[in-house]
Amino acid sequence: MQSSPDYAGRLDRVRQAMAGRGVDLALFSVGADLPYLIGYDAMNLPRLTMLVVPRDGDATLVIPNLEVARVVERPGVFGIRGWAETEDPIDIVAGLSGSPSSVAVGDQTWARNVVDLLGRLPGARWSRATELVGPLRARKDPAEVEALRTAAQAADRVAAQLHAGEIPLVGHTEAEVSAELSRRLLAEGHTHVNFAIVAAGPHAASPHHEAGATVIRPGEVVLCDFGGSFPMADGEPGYCSDITRCVYTGEPPGEFAELYAVLWEAQSAAVAAGTVGTPAEEVDGAARRVITAAGFGDRFIHRTGHGIGIFEHEDPYIVAGNGVPLEGGNAFSIEPGIYLPGRFGARLEDIVVATDDGPDPLNVVEHGLVVVEA
Amino acid sequence: MQSSPDYAGRLDRVRQAMAGRGVDLALFSVGADLPYLIGYDAMNLPRLTMLVVPRDGDATLVIPNLEVARVVERPGVFGIRGWAETEDPIDIVAGLSGSPSSVAVGDQTWARNVVDLLGRLPGARWSRATELVGPLRARKDPAEVEALRTAAQAADRVAAQLHAGEIPLVGHTEAEVSAELSRRLLAEGHTHVNFAIVAAGPHAASPHHEAGATVIRPGEVVLCDFGGSFPMADGEPGYCSDITRCVYTGEPPGEFAELYAVLWEAQSAAVAAGTVGTPAEEVDGAARRVITAAGFGDRFIHRTGHGIGIFEHEDPYIVAGNGVPLEGGNAFSIEPGIYLPGRFGARLEDIVVATDDGPDPLNVVEHGLVVVEA
Repeated sequence: MQSSPDYAGRLDRVRQAMAGRGVDLALFSVGADLPYLIGYDAMNLPRLTMLVVPRDGDATLVIPNLEVARVVERPGVFGIRGWAETEDPIDIVAGLSGSPSSVAVGDQTWARNVVDLLGRLPGARWSRATELVGPLRARKDPAEVEALRTAAQAADRVAAQLHAGEIPLVGHTEAEVSAELSRRLLAEGHTHVNFAIVAAGPHAASPHHEAGATVIRPGEVVLCDFGGSFPMADGEPGYCSDITRCVYTGEPPGEFAELYAVLWEAQSAAVAAGTVGTPAEEVDGAARRVITAAGFGDRFIHRTGHGIGIFEHEDPYIVAGNGVPLEGGNAFSIEPGIYLPGRFGARLEDIVVATDDGPDPLNVVEHGLVVVEA
Repeated sequence: MQSSPDYAGRLDRVRQAMAGRGVDLALFSVGADLPYLIGYDAMNLPRLTMLVVPRDGDATLVIPNLEVARVVERPGVFGIRGWAETEDPIDIVAGLSGSPSSVAVGDQTWARNVVDLLGRLPGARWSRATELVGPLRARKDPAEVEALRTAAQAADRVAAQLHAGEIPLVGHTEAEVSAELSRRLLAEGHTHVNFAIVAAGPHAASPHHEAGATVIRPGEVVLCDFGGSFPMADGEPGYCSDITRCVYTGEPPGEFAELYAVLWEAQSAAVAAGTVGTPAEEVDGAARRVITAAGFGDRFIHRTGHGIGIFEHEDPYIVAGNGVPLEGGNAFSIEPGIYLPGRFGARLEDIVVATDDGPDPLNVVEHGLVVVEA
């Protein structure tokens, strides 16, 4: 049994960041901050769960009574204040907050709670708590990297099944294939499916296409982008997978094969650029230069990637304008795409970790355009 | 093919509610408001999607360029403003907002966006947009009721498989059973699994227990609470299922059977109380009186239920203190529970619709405590 993450140390580093930024109070609710800081993943429901962290006081988890038994208690790290169905949790949070002049709130906290707290903490300056915890979450420790690798390997197994023709495509709807990918992500050990994009033919030109009732036909690309959350030990947060592979139902036309070759070269270049010390925007540039040189620059309509960890999209973002150099332990997607509206599109995605020895790609399943029988 | 929901009418009613409450501007982002108002379900990711609704101006959906192709355009209902990866979407929203003195924001909007908008819309009074749209969403029209019924029937089929012993329990972990329930929810037509609580033995005393590595043994209760989102037509929002059933791995001891009999009587009483015109808290009271009379009042530690629709938990809440009378088309869970910490617990849940002809229970699968072979 591996040891638990050092939650006390993580909260200490948040408090150091609060001191550095003059933040008196940090509030964390749903999303990846809580699992990272105290090992508890709050349910994304209207009942408020909120970790109240005064810079110089004890941290308290305000949580519905009926969910108190879900929490692994960590004495010395945080206390627990359960609330009954007829109590107002905003009152409780306000009572624990004192009179802060500067409050930082976690990214995914529901707006309803922010709105209610605005009136209860008057005069406070509000900021994003991700400025405090984002840089910490972005530097994965070795156990986190191994958790991401385990998740990536499970996603790779599903991709290998797709490549091997084990997932029926032609004659089935995108939605059916999406459900089958979801079932296989669970069968390979994920506890939750985060998304399973299946985009056939012209739909592959829509990067975040919602799988629908369209039936997959012979002679078209099928873009599959899927991922989920893979558990660590009981009571520890899970880590995410995220992979994109394209298959073609029959022999692809030369035009598509050429486009895919450009994409693969661009993706490889960006993976190779993912080294410690390289600004994130340079990694984006490495992919974009290849695609632009091939004449598709205006058809690569999104950034090259996003950080990944307990949540699918987090720091660091691999995007123009982000000049922050990569650090060891940064984990991120490299997923350039080329999209020709009305015709077709393609994307190729791996998760990569920046290490002192260079980029460590976690997804190693076949990168080529695999032809599946029509 | 059924016709689309009347999105224009829904936005008109939001504007009427804005006028009634003196709200100049409503902002809707992730969560169930957008699917309800315009048929588009935004991805729950950091890139901002936001519907900007001035009370007296045109509605505009601000959305990442790479997701524009996901949107079914509805001319006359809302316009689209895509944003590129290097633009600041907050700038765009602020530019569309004018100088409102009163802003309402959707419940699940990420706090990071509220924080950024606080500085861009200075002096505005902020409120919860759920005060505008919650009462609308709570009154389901006939097509929505049928969508909920279809979802409930799919969940019932999974519960029937559980009852029939088709899902292996003894010797398997809670997490494995949770994954199996999830796979079956997808196989029965759901597109997403929202949760699959599996709580064995003493864990059944934790209402929102997270399924873990505990192996299920002979002679204990297994509480299963699961649900997902079931699709309507392509491009229309899905509706949720949510059901709880308990099974026992072998013959239950008399003490547990008696507890379950109390629970079943309480649940039946609350279902029967779910009539148009009855205050929500009276429905809660109907269940609570039965459980209290049997001596378990302090072991029923949560409200009786929650509204359900595009999202799992929404208005109306069936809870003490909510004196609002039920209206026709209100859809909600009835799910009392009795929890004895360290020993066991039980919960029984159906989705019910209040109609002019009385309560319409959508879940009709066996309500008794089913014994599965150990």
